[in-house]
Amino acid sequence: MASRRIGRPRSRASTSGLSTEEDILRAAAALLCEVGYGSTSTYAIAEAAGVSQASLYHYFGGKHAVLLALLMRTVEPSVAVATSLLGRVESAEVRLWALCAYDVRLLVSGEQNTGSLYLLPELSDEKFAEFHVERQRLADVYAALIAAVVGEAAASDASWLVFGLVESVILRRRTGATGPDTAAQIADAALRVLGVAEERIGDVRAEAEFLLQSL
Amino acid sequence: MASRRIGRPRSRASTSGLSTEEDILRAAAALLCEVGYGSTSTYAIAEAAGVSQASLYHYFGGKHAVLLALLMRTVEPSVAVATSLLGRVESAEVRLWALCAYDVRLLVSGEQNTGSLYLLPELSDEKFAEFHVERQRLADVYAALIAAVVGEAAASDASWLVFGLVESVILRRRTGATGPDTAAQIADAALRVLGVAEERIGDVRAEAEFLLQSL
Repeated sequence: MASRRIGRPRSRASTSGLSTEEDILRAAAALLCEVGYGSTSTYAIAEAAGVSQASLYHYFGGKHAVLLALLMRTVEPSVAVATSLLGRVESAEVRLWALCAYDVRLLVSGEQNTGSLYLLPELSDEKFAEFHVERQRLADVYAALIAAVVGEAAASDASWLVFGLVESVILRRRTGATGPDTAAQIADAALRVLGVAEERIGDVRAEAEFLLQSL
Repeated sequence: MASRRIGRPRSRASTSGLSTEEDILRAAAALLCEVGYGSTSTYAIAEAAGVSQASLYHYFGGKHAVLLALLMRTVEPSVAVATSLLGRVESAEVRLWALCAYDVRLLVSGEQNTGSLYLLPELSDEKFAEFHVERQRLADVYAALIAAVVGEAAASDASWLVFGLVESVILRRRTGATGPDTAAQIADAALRVLGVAEERIGDVRAEAEFLLQSL
């Protein structure tokens, strides 16, 4: 998922064993999710990452660029999976289940609930356009798979419901109520919302999990 | 919904025709949702509300108290409806549909998406305990109605899915994609997630809308 570039040499050795860029992103995720965007400075991020502010600015154009990088990591892997699913021969139900489950697992992965940054008012700034474009690409694949399940006419409203179910895991994670079965439960629920017959859901789930292994 | 207390006289006349307390809450909602919690001061809130900082502190113990008041308004009306629904004789499906629809309508009402403040890291502070208690009361009524639909064993997992669907409207509102049918669509979807038969949903919806009128 994460591209690991060869970093510029740092003044202090990394204690985490990660690249400088990774150290910065990890420290920033913790500060943005635990302290807040408005209350976090690039100074504080650099300090927490154990790098100089100059080093931070070598990798990122500023605090917004650090946030953008964190946001991109919450959608890019799902967009990659979504795109490869579009070219597969499995049924739309199976591919949709796989996408929902993958997306939920991505959103609950990592130490911090970076999806919670989606609601920051700052995200309406032009600087975050790249994130919104990527999120729209993901939404478009959901809509295409959902249209194949429920038909074009019902797809728009149904897509919002499914997308909402998937992303609700961000709010749910806030209360700590996620577990190993959460992704499968949400993917099952997405099919129920679309009116897929109950007796089919078990088979779809098994086939989709197998599909995910092979991607 | 909102209790209108007789306010302390202000130095300037209200231009909105609302009480001082309402003017403060309205200005605060706009700043917190459009600028961010960390970047908003009590000075800025008082300024935007057209009141003195002393007047703001007459009504609220500080910025956290303003935020708490805004958060309480996103749950208290739903808790009141939920509590009265518990004493009604209609089926659990009908009462659950009514609660989902009422809750979604509350979350999309108002000029600002105050539900987006749920994800602020600051909310883990003890100062916001009252909000978390109220939200839990609401979740408990959802769980009770859902247990009556799907049975006790399945109720916990199912409750998270339904609660997630309802609150996903907060994320959805961020992209502006809500309309007059959103609440009914989400309430319908909640019943589908619980496995309520498709042919029943239309009747449940009609009965639940009628019930909501009578509350």
